[in-house]
Amino acid sequence: MDKMAGERKNTVFYGTFIHSKSLDELEYLHNTAVFVDKEGKIVAVERECDLTTALTIKVSELGWNPDVAIEAPREGQFFFPGLIDTHIHASQYPNVGIFGKSTLLDWLNKYTFPLEASLNDLDKARKVYTRVIRKTLSHGTTCAAYYATVDDLSTVLFADLCAKAGQRALVGKVCMDQMAPDWYRDESWEESIAATKRLISHVESMDSEMRLVRPVITPRFAPSCSKRLLKELGNLARETGLPVQTHISENKGEIELVRKMFPKEETGARDDSYTAVYDVYGLLTDKTILAHGIHLSEEEVEVIKQRGSKISHCPCSNSSITSGEARVRWLLEKGVGVGLGTDMSGGYSPSVLEAARSALLVSRHVAMKGDDNAKLSVEEVLYLATRGGAEVVGLEGKVGAFEVGMDWDAQLIGLCEVDDKGGVAEEEEEGNVDIFGWESWEEKVAKWLFNGDDRNTRKVWVKGRLVHVRK
Amino acid sequence: MDKMAGERKNTVFYGTFIHSKSLDELEYLHNTAVFVDKEGKIVAVERECDLTTALTIKVSELGWNPDVAIEAPREGQFFFPGLIDTHIHASQYPNVGIFGKSTLLDWLNKYTFPLEASLNDLDKARKVYTRVIRKTLSHGTTCAAYYATVDDLSTVLFADLCAKAGQRALVGKVCMDQMAPDWYRDESWEESIAATKRLISHVESMDSEMRLVRPVITPRFAPSCSKRLLKELGNLARETGLPVQTHISENKGEIELVRKMFPKEETGARDDSYTAVYDVYGLLTDKTILAHGIHLSEEEVEVIKQRGSKISHCPCSNSSITSGEARVRWLLEKGVGVGLGTDMSGGYSPSVLEAARSALLVSRHVAMKGDDNAKLSVEEVLYLATRGGAEVVGLEGKVGAFEVGMDWDAQLIGLCEVDDKGGVAEEEEEGNVDIFGWESWEEKVAKWLFNGDDRNTRKVWVKGRLVHVRK
Repeated sequence: MDKMAGERKNTVFYGTFIHSKSLDELEYLHNTAVFVDKEGKIVAVERECDLTTALTIKVSELGWNPDVAIEAPREGQFFFPGLIDTHIHASQYPNVGIFGKSTLLDWLNKYTFPLEASLNDLDKARKVYTRVIRKTLSHGTTCAAYYATVDDLSTVLFADLCAKAGQRALVGKVCMDQMAPDWYRDESWEESIAATKRLISHVESMDSEMRLVRPVITPRFAPSCSKRLLKELGNLARETGLPVQTHISENKGEIELVRKMFPKEETGARDDSYTAVYDVYGLLTDKTILAHGIHLSEEEVEVIKQRGSKISHCPCSNSSITSGEARVRWLLEKGVGVGLGTDMSGGYSPSVLEAARSALLVSRHVAMKGDDNAKLSVEEVLYLATRGGAEVVGLEGKVGAFEVGMDWDAQLIGLCEVDDKGGVAEEEEEGNVDIFGWESWEEKVAKWLFNGDDRNTRKVWVKGRLVHVRK
Repeated sequence: MDKMAGERKNTVFYGTFIHSKSLDELEYLHNTAVFVDKEGKIVAVERECDLTTALTIKVSELGWNPDVAIEAPREGQFFFPGLIDTHIHASQYPNVGIFGKSTLLDWLNKYTFPLEASLNDLDKARKVYTRVIRKTLSHGTTCAAYYATVDDLSTVLFADLCAKAGQRALVGKVCMDQMAPDWYRDESWEESIAATKRLISHVESMDSEMRLVRPVITPRFAPSCSKRLLKELGNLARETGLPVQTHISENKGEIELVRKMFPKEETGARDDSYTAVYDVYGLLTDKTILAHGIHLSEEEVEVIKQRGSKISHCPCSNSSITSGEARVRWLLEKGVGVGLGTDMSGGYSPSVLEAARSALLVSRHVAMKGDDNAKLSVEEVLYLATRGGAEVVGLEGKVGAFEVGMDWDAQLIGLCEVDDKGGVAEEEEEGNVDIFGWESWEEKVAKWLFNGDDRNTRKVWVKGRLVHVRK
């Protein structure tokens, strides 16, 4: 990676930049120069300029050494913010696409726990985790909120690999001390907390330069945690100010289970809802990422909003294991922050672009029930994949768009330009986004959303550092 | 293409073959030799043998010249039947992914008619059609039921291009003499019939050797055809014995429109249903392909079954333009033949594998309404993509599996084997199906279904002829 990054220079990116201006509006900046300093921060954006002028005037204005790096891709390519995966189980990657006809609770026991447990073997963990990071980077994921496994040693290894690869990551050791096979759980709540603290210490001691990797407090989901463990994790969140991630309201059977396992008489919660359980244990903070949130009630959403917690919408997963259809429009209108998650391997794909496409399609299934307003647009799902995700992982205003003061977390997108004979030029890598030449920019972006894959992601940067180049 | 095909020889394919044995069962044939003669027909299948023995014994038994071609891919790759797209608009390919928030009727006027009409320009048509055929072949589509445009000249061009590329195709000139802009419709029912007959004559005069391309009678859908046109197309179907393709029951607004436009008092149909309209005009034959069939009633399905007509299920399209969720399990249990269609560009993808994946996911949305039995399995959607499709396009028993007497319409699938360091060997083209080494064959196939794309389709054959090789 260091080889790719080379010596850090101030860099001028020049060409077309596309990013979300608001939930329903993409902004198209053409003939634009974005100035990124050695630390990876965007320090200036010059619109509608030519490169030479931008260089001669702006570089001196910024007081930069004239020896700047220039990244000016050919016309037709464009820069897009890096994608943010707000919910992904790194340890489950080898199981993508393997779920049969299962739903959440049997899926966990049949497919998921055995694989996660097997990553105690650090050689296996290294192989899987290296591949996950390489794969997600290749799909333009510049930041991800990861679950690793119960084992803190392999979770530490994973954090190291993220830092080395230069991917921005929240890394969680999965906490679970009950409702799991005895070969795959924390031995006690004390051990769960101790292992989490070991991860936190490790991560805080590393990566001092980049600060890309952060620990995240990670109760798997309420049923797999004892009340004491939930309480202590809530305390830990309060003491450390660290983010929290967990699952909520994914599956009707699960919700019923929570209701039975955590009656308000025992927890002291306001009611028997899933949300109230997390709330009573102090796990709903303004840094909490709640995956799914499919079957939430009005009251639950109100509490989540008041606490400032956010929702990770995982449409691929929700369809695959028949969890349900999250009402994203409703959540947004309630004022809750929403981002997208691949939820591998409940979701079958490591690609946030696929999650965005899927979010649009699933919103149409919600609309089929009679609410046309439920439909999400191309612009909206791309917002969720970038700025929405940034809000969910606590990086609002820091990444997710091309604005002065933000970090350069970005990707260069190239599409296939079809020639007159129906072929493509040799220097073009073939992919599935065919541009015939008459499309508007809005149409090009829609085509990319629907048929784009890692072949279209030509380069990826995190905090100014080049972390992936398509071969 | 001819260069790729080379001199035709008898060929022995050796290795792993996977195909549907029945709707819910895939058969895995390892160490198997499939003998394909110069005409592209499978003449013998030897299971559990070694290649040398198969060659020495079987070649002489078949009376073959010993100079056979051998295709024995490396372990881990497998042969799979070519995929069959039972509903695709070749002319709409440049619009894939472009549909905004439209539904059927506004989508036609806003996006579809202008593009289709523009293909009267034969240079443009050649560019688009060449690309479509190349693209669908690269995704393993060995046979497709295509709609071209209203214009018979560009439709003839398209048929020629299919034949040249060696893709098996039903090619339809779109018939529509009403409810369309005056710049895009047949001038009269007489002209629609005459143009259809010109296409039929052309196709029947060409491709005398391979007989891969067939004409198909193609009323766009009831609302865009006058009663007289429907009646004459029904007559033409009866006189020629040719297959018919059209749309049915895609969208609730469309169904209501049909009810209003074709009251039984005027048509003489048994009732005001969509099905009854086609039936009264003789358009429901045992060679009729009906796309969508989302909102059909019990009575309609009964009529369709009695007539022996088939359904093309187009899940990508049905979600994209919010048409609805077809109940595939219900159709299958009623005894109606079902295949898959990409329905580009109502559907956003040229890939039948994507349609299969989508069929599985959409079946889960049907199941969410309370009928768990609605879920389609990996095996079932792959059946629909191959043998199911063969039944729909009238090639049952001729293509869709590896059985003696069938044609060799096949693809070679390669997946990525991840090495111990999380990379893949150089000779492997990277794709998104990562194999870690511990997967069963069933799991490999599930992984291919969910993350496979054209990169995994290494070679494609139609009737024994090599028609695509992945670069």
